Amino acid sequence: MASESGKLWGGRFVGAVDPIMEKFNASIAYDQHLWEVDVQGSKAYSRGLEKAGLLTKAEMDQILHGLDKVAEEWAQGTFKLNCNDEDIHTANERRLKELIGETAGKLHTGRSRNDQVVTDLRLWLRQTCSTLSGLLWELIRTMVDRAEAERDVLFPGYTHLQRAQPIRWSHWILSGAIAGNPLGVDRELLRAELNFGAITLNSMDATSERDFVAEFLFWASLCMTHLSRMAEDLILYCTKEFSFVQLSDAYSTGSSLMPQKKNPDSLELIRSKAGRVFGRCAGLLMTLKGLPSTYNKDLQEDKEAVFEVSDTMSAVLQVATGVISTLQIHQENMGQALSPDMLATDLAYYLVRKGMPFRQAHEASGKAVFMAETKGVALNQLSLQELQTISPLFSGDVSCVWDYGHSVEQYGALGGTARSSVDWQIRQVRALLQAQQA
Amino acid sequence: MASESGKLWGGRFVGAVDPIMEKFNASIAYDQHLWEVDVQGSKAYSRGLEKAGLLTKAEMDQILHGLDKVAEEWAQGTFKLNCNDEDIHTANERRLKELIGETAGKLHTGRSRNDQVVTDLRLWLRQTCSTLSGLLWELIRTMVDRAEAERDVLFPGYTHLQRAQPIRWSHWILSGAIAGNPLGVDRELLRAELNFGAITLNSMDATSERDFVAEFLFWASLCMTHLSRMAEDLILYCTKEFSFVQLSDAYSTGSSLMPQKKNPDSLELIRSKAGRVFGRCAGLLMTLKGLPSTYNKDLQEDKEAVFEVSDTMSAVLQVATGVISTLQIHQENMGQALSPDMLATDLAYYLVRKGMPFRQAHEASGKAVFMAETKGVALNQLSLQELQTISPLFSGDVSCVWDYGHSVEQYGALGGTARSSVDWQIRQVRALLQAQQA
Amino acid sequence: MASESGKLWGGRFVGAVDPIMEKFNASIAYDQHLWEVDVQGSKAYSRGLEKAGLLTKAEMDQILHGLDKVAEEWAQGTFKLNCNDEDIHTANERRLKELIGETAGKLHTGRSRNDQVVTDLRLWLRQTCSTLSGLLWELIRTMVDRAEAERDVLFPGYTHLQRAQPIRWSHWILSGAIAGNPLGVDRELLRAELNFGAITLNSMDATSERDFVAEFLFWASLCMTHLSRMAEDLILYCTKEFSFVQLSDAYSTGSSLMPQKKNPDSLELIRSKAGRVFGRCAGLLMTLKGLPSTYNKDLQEDKEAVFEVSDTMSAVLQVATGVISTLQIHQENMGQALSPDMLATDLAYYLVRKGMPFRQAHEASGKAVFMAETKGVALNQLSLQELQTISPLFSGDVSCVWDYGHSVEQYGALGGTARSSVDWQIRQVRALLQAQQA
Amino acid sequence: MASESGKLWGGRFVGAVDPIMEKFNASIAYDQHLWEVDVQGSKAYSRGLEKAGLLTKAEMDQILHGLDKVAEEWAQGTFKLNCNDEDIHTANERRLKELIGETAGKLHTGRSRNDQVVTDLRLWLRQTCSTLSGLLWELIRTMVDRAEAERDVLFPGYTHLQRAQPIRWSHWILSGAIAGNPLGVDRELLRAELNFGAITLNSMDATSERDFVAEFLFWASLCMTHLSRMAEDLILYCTKEFSFVQLSDAYSTGSSLMPQKKNPDSLELIRSKAGRVFGRCAGLLMTLKGLPSTYNKDLQEDKEAVFEVSDTMSAVLQVATGVISTLQIHQENMGQALSPDMLATDLAYYLVRKGMPFRQAHEASGKAVFMAETKGVALNQLSLQELQTISPLFSGDVSCVWDYGHSVEQYGALGGTARSSVDWQIRQVRALLQAQQA
Repeated sequence: MASESGKLWGGRFVGAVDPIMEKFNASIAYDQHLWEVDVQGSKAYSRGLEKAGLLTKAEMDQILHGLDKVAEEWAQGTFKLNCNDEDIHTANERRLKELIGETAGKLHTGRSRNDQVVTDLRLWLRQTCSTLSGLLWELIRTMVDRAEAERDVLFPGYTHLQRAQPIRWSHWILSGAIAGNPLGVDRELLRAELNFGAITLNSMDATSERDFVAEFLFWASLCMTHLSRMAEDLILYCTKEFSFVQLSDAYSTGSSLMPQKKNPDSLELIRSKAGRVFGRCAGLLMTLKGLPSTYNKDLQEDKEAVFEVSDTMSAVLQVATGVISTLQIHQENMGQALSPDMLATDLAYYLVRKGMPFRQAHEASGKAVFMAETKGVALNQLSLQELQTISPLFSGDVSCVWDYGHSVEQYGALGGTARSSVDWQIRQVRALLQAQQA
Repeated sequence: MASESGKLWGGRFVGAVDPIMEKFNASIAYDQHLWEVDVQGSKAYSRGLEKAGLLTKAEMDQILHGLDKVAEEWAQGTFKLNCNDEDIHTANERRLKELIGETAGKLHTGRSRNDQVVTDLRLWLRQTCSTLSGLLWELIRTMVDRAEAERDVLFPGYTHLQRAQPIRWSHWILSGAIAGNPLGVDRELLRAELNFGAITLNSMDATSERDFVAEFLFWASLCMTHLSRMAEDLILYCTKEFSFVQLSDAYSTGSSLMPQKKNPDSLELIRSKAGRVFGRCAGLLMTLKGLPSTYNKDLQEDKEAVFEVSDTMSAVLQVATGVISTLQIHQENMGQALSPDMLATDLAYYLVRKGMPFRQAHEASGKAVFMAETKGVALNQLSLQELQTISPLFSGDVSCVWDYGHSVEQYGALGGTARSSVDWQIRQVRALLQAQQA
Repeated sequence: MASESGKLWGGRFVGAVDPIMEKFNASIAYDQHLWEVDVQGSKAYSRGLEKAGLLTKAEMDQILHGLDKVAEEWAQGTFKLNCNDEDIHTANERRLKELIGETAGKLHTGRSRNDQVVTDLRLWLRQTCSTLSGLLWELIRTMVDRAEAERDVLFPGYTHLQRAQPIRWSHWILSGAIAGNPLGVDRELLRAELNFGAITLNSMDATSERDFVAEFLFWASLCMTHLSRMAEDLILYCTKEFSFVQLSDAYSTGSSLMPQKKNPDSLELIRSKAGRVFGRCAGLLMTLKGLPSTYNKDLQEDKEAVFEVSDTMSAVLQVATGVISTLQIHQENMGQALSPDMLATDLAYYLVRKGMPFRQAHEASGKAVFMAETKGVALNQLSLQELQTISPLFSGDVSCVWDYGHSVEQYGALGGTARSSVDWQIRQVRALLQAQQA
Repeated sequence: MASESGKLWGGRFVGAVDPIMEKFNASIAYDQHLWEVDVQGSKAYSRGLEKAGLLTKAEMDQILHGLDKVAEEWAQGTFKLNCNDEDIHTANERRLKELIGETAGKLHTGRSRNDQVVTDLRLWLRQTCSTLSGLLWELIRTMVDRAEAERDVLFPGYTHLQRAQPIRWSHWILSGAIAGNPLGVDRELLRAELNFGAITLNSMDATSERDFVAEFLFWASLCMTHLSRMAEDLILYCTKEFSFVQLSDAYSTGSSLMPQKKNPDSLELIRSKAGRVFGRCAGLLMTLKGLPSTYNKDLQEDKEAVFEVSDTMSAVLQVATGVISTLQIHQENMGQALSPDMLATDLAYYLVRKGMPFRQAHEASGKAVFMAETKGVALNQLSLQELQTISPLFSGDVSCVWDYGHSVEQYGALGGTARSSVDWQIRQVRALLQAQQA
C-alpha cells in the first residue's frame, strides 16, 4: 500500500525523527541572542498571571526568582544547553523547571510560543536600535566636529563627477552628517513603535505581522546606501589622481604583491555592506510575500536577518567613525584642484546682476569658456576687451569674479556653502545632538 | 592618431548626436506626468525671484501669466511637444519663451535643472500620496463595514494552515484592516516630510538624496506584501476545498479551455504585484548604491519607478476594495469547518481553571486528543469516565467546553476574537477613519 | 593643523590599528572553510614554480611536504590560529614558515592574494556543486520511485487553485522532478566552467569577475523558487480541507498551545528559504554594481554568501528528500475530490469529435455546466434529453465521458497524464539518473 | 443575509464588471508586442490540427490564409483593437473569425490560452535573444578593433582604485570584451533551450514554469552589472583628475546652470540601468516564490518584465558601442600617470631573479619605497649605494627595472599585458566573432 511509504522509500527515514530535520528546524544556534529579553518578557508575563489570579503571589515569586537564576547562568556563561533545547524559549523553561519544579509549567498559561517569539524579538530590537542610534550619533558628532574645525578649506564640488563649483570641505562633510540625521529620526519612530505604549489592535495580526522587522531592515538598507555613497566619495578622494585625503594606517591595508600600495579597505568594506544588508531586507520581503495570515514557520527567517544586520551596522558605524575621525586632508591639493572655469556660473551671475536674463547670461558665459579654450588660456586670463566682444555689460569689476573665497560666500542661503551657512548647519546638527542626549 | 577615433570606428557615429543616445537620454516620454507641478514650482520660484529683486513686478506678472497659459495648453491637450524637448522642464520653458519672449530666460536665474527635477517630483509625490491614502482609507472603510455586519459568523482560525481555534470572520477581516492602518500612518510621516515645512539643511544633499523616493517605494512594497497575504488567504478560501467565500463575477474570469472554471484572477493579480513593486524598490536602491554624492544622471531612474508604482498601487487598492465589497461568504461552510479538536486548548484551559499548571493541562488535553483519535470518535464524544482516566479534575461541567460560541467569547482581551473585543476593534478603526476625514 | 586629526577627534583612535577595523577586515572566521582547497592550490602552484625554474626540486619537495603537514593539522583539528592570521591564506603560509623555514617565502612568487582567493573559491565551489548535485539527484530519484509506485492514483489537477481536470498523482510528482532536472544540467555547465579546462582570457578580468559566484547564487535561487512552489502545494494538500497527504511525524511539529495541532514545519521552512537564498544573490549583485574593475575589497562579500547558500541548499535538499520519501497519501480523499464538472472539457471534446468547432463546443459545454448548476444536480446527472436541448450532437455514447480513468487516458501525448505518458516520463528521468551515475 | 453583500457595500460595484478590474486584468496594452509570434504559433498549431485529423485540408488553408491577413493588418498598422480584446490572443482570434467565419473556432481545439501565452513568449524571446546577441557582438567587435589599434598605449592598472602596475590600455579594453564573451555563450545556451529541439517533459510544468524568463532576466542583470563596472571605470577616466579619456559630444550633455560642464550622461545612464534590470529579475522571482503549481494569473507579470528589459538592453548595448567607438584617449596623460613606485613589484622580482625568496624580496622592495618616500625622491632616483644598504643583491643592472615598456613585456603569460599576450587575446576574441558569423 502506498501509505506504507516510510518503508518503501529511503532507508534513512525509519526512526521517529530525521536528525537533519531536527537541526533544520531548531533555532537555538542563533536565538540564544535573545536570552536576556526572554527572561525579561517571562518575568513581566508572570506578573500578569498573578494579577489575573492564575498564579498565587508565592508561585509568582518562585518563578521570578527562578528566572533570575536562569539569567545569572547565561550572564556567567554557565548555562548548559541540552540537545532537546530547540529554541531559547524551550531552553529557558526547561532550566526553570529544573530549578523550581512543577510551578514552572504554569508560566505558559495562555500564551503561545509565537507570542513569546515576537515579543522577545521586539524587545531585543528596541535595545539594539538604541545601541545603533548611539553609534550613529557618535558618527554624526565626529563629522560635525571636523566640519567645524575645517570650515575654511575650499575644494571642488562635483556633479556627474565633473568639477562644478568651489565649495567648502565642511559642506561636503555636513551633506553626509545631514543625510544621517533623518535616519536618526526614523529610528525614533521605530523606537516609538517598539515602546509598546500602544497595544497591537488584533491578535491575528500581532503574531504574524513583521512590519517592525521589515522596517528595521529597510532603515538599515537605506542607511547603508548613504554610507556606500560617502565611502565612494572618499575612495575617489584617496586616489593618486584626486589626492584630497589620506586614510590613516589604522584603516588601510597593504598589498601582498605590490610593496608601494596602501588600499582603502575600510571604505571598500563599508561600501560593500550595502549589498549584504539590502539582501537581507529583500530576502525577508520575499519570504513574507503571499504567506497565509497568522503564524507560519517561514517567519522564523526574521531572526537571523535581524541579528546579522545589527552586527553589520554596529561594525560599519564604528569603522566609519574611526575613518572620519583619523582622516588627513590635503588642503593644498584641494585648493589646486580649483580652476577658473568653475567660476563660469559666477561669470553668468555677474551679467545677471547687470540686468541680463539668466539664459542669455549662461550663453554668454559659455561663449567665454569656449573662447578661453580656443585660445588655450584660463577663463580668468581673457582680457576685458575679449569679454566685451561677447557682451558690452562686462566692465573692470569683472575681476572680482575670479576669487574662490568670494565665490563660495555668495551661497549664503540656508543650506549653502558660505561660511555663515555652514556655521548654521553645524549649529543645527549640534542642536540635534544635544536634543538627543537630553 | 588614436584621438581620431571617431573616424576609425563606427560609421554610424559621424554626426554630432547619436539618435539612440538622444532617446536614451530623454525623459519627456514619462516625465510629462509632471507638467502641473512643474508649472506650480516655476510660479513659486518666479515669486521668489521678484522678492529677491531679480525680477521686476512686471516681469513676474508676465511670467506667471505665461505659465498659466502653458498649464492651460497641457490641461486641454493642445500642448505640442518639439523634437528638442528632452524633458518636461525644457518643454515648458521653451513654450514660455514662445509665449512671452526673452523674459522667460530670467526664470531660471540661480536654479539648476536638478533642483527643479527634485522639487517637481516631491510635489507630485505629495499629491499622489494623498490620492493613494484616500484609496487606502476607502479599502479600510469597506473592510470595517463588512466586519461590523458579519460579526456573528464564526470560522476556523489557522496557523501553519492547520485549523487552530474558532474565531470570528470579522476578526480575520480586521486583521487585514488593522495591518493597513500603520501604513496610513507611515504615509502621514511621508506627507509631513513632503510638506516642505522643514527646509533641507544642505544643498549638496538636497539634489542627490532620494530618501523620499526610496521610502515611498518601500512603503508600497510593504503595503503590497500585506495585500499579497490577504489575497493568498482569500484565494484559499475560494477553493472548492475551503469554499468559505465566493468571488463576485466582476472580479473573476473563466477559462478558455475548461467551461466549469471560475478563477480568482483579481486576487492573483494583487498577489503578483508585490513582486513588481518590490522589484522597483530593489532596483532604485541598487542604482543608488555607491553613487558619488551630488547629482549623477543615474538618479533619473527614480521617476519611472515612482510613476509605475503609483499606478499599480492605485489599481490594486481599488480592485481590492471591489473584491472585499462584493465577496459572498458561505456562512454554513464556515460553521461546518469547525471541529471539536479545535477546542483542545479550551479543554486545557478548563483544567487550568481547576488549578492544574498549564504545561500539565496541555499534556492532559493532548492525551484526550490522542484517545479520541484512537477510538475514532470526535473529541467531544469522549465520556466523562474516559476523561477522568486522564485527570480526576474533569467533572460534569466539562460539557460547557464544547460550544464554539462560548469558546470565542473567552477571548475578550483587547485584540481578541470575542464579540466585545471585535466591536472595540471596529470602533478603533472607525475612529481612525473619522480622524482621517476631519 | 587639521592633518593632526588623529589627536583632535576620537580618543579611541590613537594606536596604530583600530581593533574593530581589524575584525571588520578579517575573513578568517568564515574562510577557514577553504583550508583544504588552499593547500591544494598552493601545492599545484609550487609545482608550477619549479617548472618555471623559480624553485629547485628540493625546495618544491620541502614546500609540498610542509603543506601536507598543514593539511594534516587542519584535518585533525590541531591547527592553531594566531591573532594575526587575518585570512586562511595568511594562516597557512605563516604555519608553513614555522614548519619549513624561509623557503616558505618563495611560495608566493608572482601570485597575488587576490589570485589565490579566487582560485580557492573556484575549487571549493567545484566540490560543493558536486555534493549538492548528488543531493539533488537523490531527491529526484526518490520522486521518480514514488511516481512509479503510485501511478494509478488519480486526483484533481488545479489551475488558479481551482479544480481543473483529473490527473495522475504521479504526474504532479514528476512535474516537480522534471523541474528539478534542468537545474542538474545547469550545474553541469557550472562544473564545466569550474573545470579550468579553459583558462581565463584576461588577467584583469580573472581576479575581479565573480560570474561563477553570481551564477551559483542564481542557480540556487531558482532551484529554491521551484522547491518553494512544491512546498506550497504540499502544505495545501496537508490542510484539513484538502487532506490529500499526511506528513510523517519526523517532519512535523506540534503546537506549544494547541494540543491537536500537527504543523508542516519542514515544508514551511523549505518555502521560506527561497527568500534567504535569493537575498544573498540580490546582495552580491548590488555589491558588484558600479564597482571599478580589478580587485576591490568589496569582493570579499562573495564568500559568506556562497558558504551560507551552500549550507542552506544542502539541508533543504535532504529535508525535501525525507519529506517526499515518508509522505503518506490519502488515495480515497484524492478520489473523492474528483467531481463531474472537471470533465466539462471532455464533454466539449466529445462534441468536437462529432464535428463541432471547439469554440462552439466550449460554449455548449458551458451551457451544460450552467444547466446542471441551475437544476442543482451534478453535470453527469443531466439526462440525454436535457443535453440534446443544448446540441443535437449528443447521443447515448455521452455516458462514456463520465469516467475519470478514461479521461486521463486521453492525454497520451508525450508529457501528458495518461498512464503510458507518465511511464514515459519516468523512463526519461530514470535515464537521466543513470547517465548521471555513469 | 450576508451573501447579498453586493448591495450592502459599495455603490460602484453594481454592474457585472468593474471597469477598473477589466483594465487591471487586461494585458493587451503590452502584449501587442507578440502579434507576430502569435500568428506564427497559430499557423503551426493549425498544421498540427490538420495532421491529427481535427481540421480538413480546406479548413486549414482557410485558417492559414486568414492568419496571414491578420498579420498583414498588424504589419501595416491597420489592425483595429476592440474594447473586448483583453489580450493579443483574443484579439487575433476575434479578427480571424470576422475574416473567415466559424472555422476560426476550430483553431483552439485542445490548446489552452496558457499554452498559447507561454509558447508565444518563448518564440518572442528567441527572436529577441538573437537581436540582442547581434548588438552584443557588435559592441565586442568595436572593443577588439580599438584594442588592436591602440595596443601600444600604456597606462596605470589599478586595484582598490590605487595605482598598481603599468598595463596596456588594450588590456583594459579586452577585460571588458572578454567579460562580455561568456554572456554571449550564455545566450547560446538560452537559444538552445528556446530552440524547441527538446520537448518539455511534463505538461503541468510546461505551462507554469518560467525558468526561461528568469534566466533571461538574470543574464541581462549580470550583463548590466558588467557594463555598470565598465561605465564606472570610464566615468572615472573622464574626470578632470584622471583625464585619460574624453567622451565625444554625441554622448555627453551640458549643464543648464554651469556653462563649462560636459557630463558623461551616457555612461551614467548605462550604470544606472543595472538597477532597473535587476529590479525586474528580483520582482519576477518574488512573484514566483511560493506560487502553487500550474498556471496562476500571477505569471502574467512575466511579459512586461521581459519587454522592458529587452528594450533597455537594446538601447544600452547600442549606446555602449557608440561610446566606445567615439571615445578619444589622452595618451599623454595616460603616460604621465605612470610613476616609478608602480615598478616596486618589478624591483622585488629583480631580487627574486637573483635568488631571494619572494617574501623577503617584497619586504626589501617595501623598504626601498619607504626610503624614497622619506628622502622625498622617486623610487628610481635612489642610488645604487642606497639600494645596497637594503640588499647586497642590487647591482648596476637594476637600472633596467625603470622602464615601463620593459615592465609590461614581462607579463607574457596568456592573459597578461605583454604585447604578444594582448595580441593573442585579440585573436581569441576575433575567432569568437568569426565563429559567431559563420
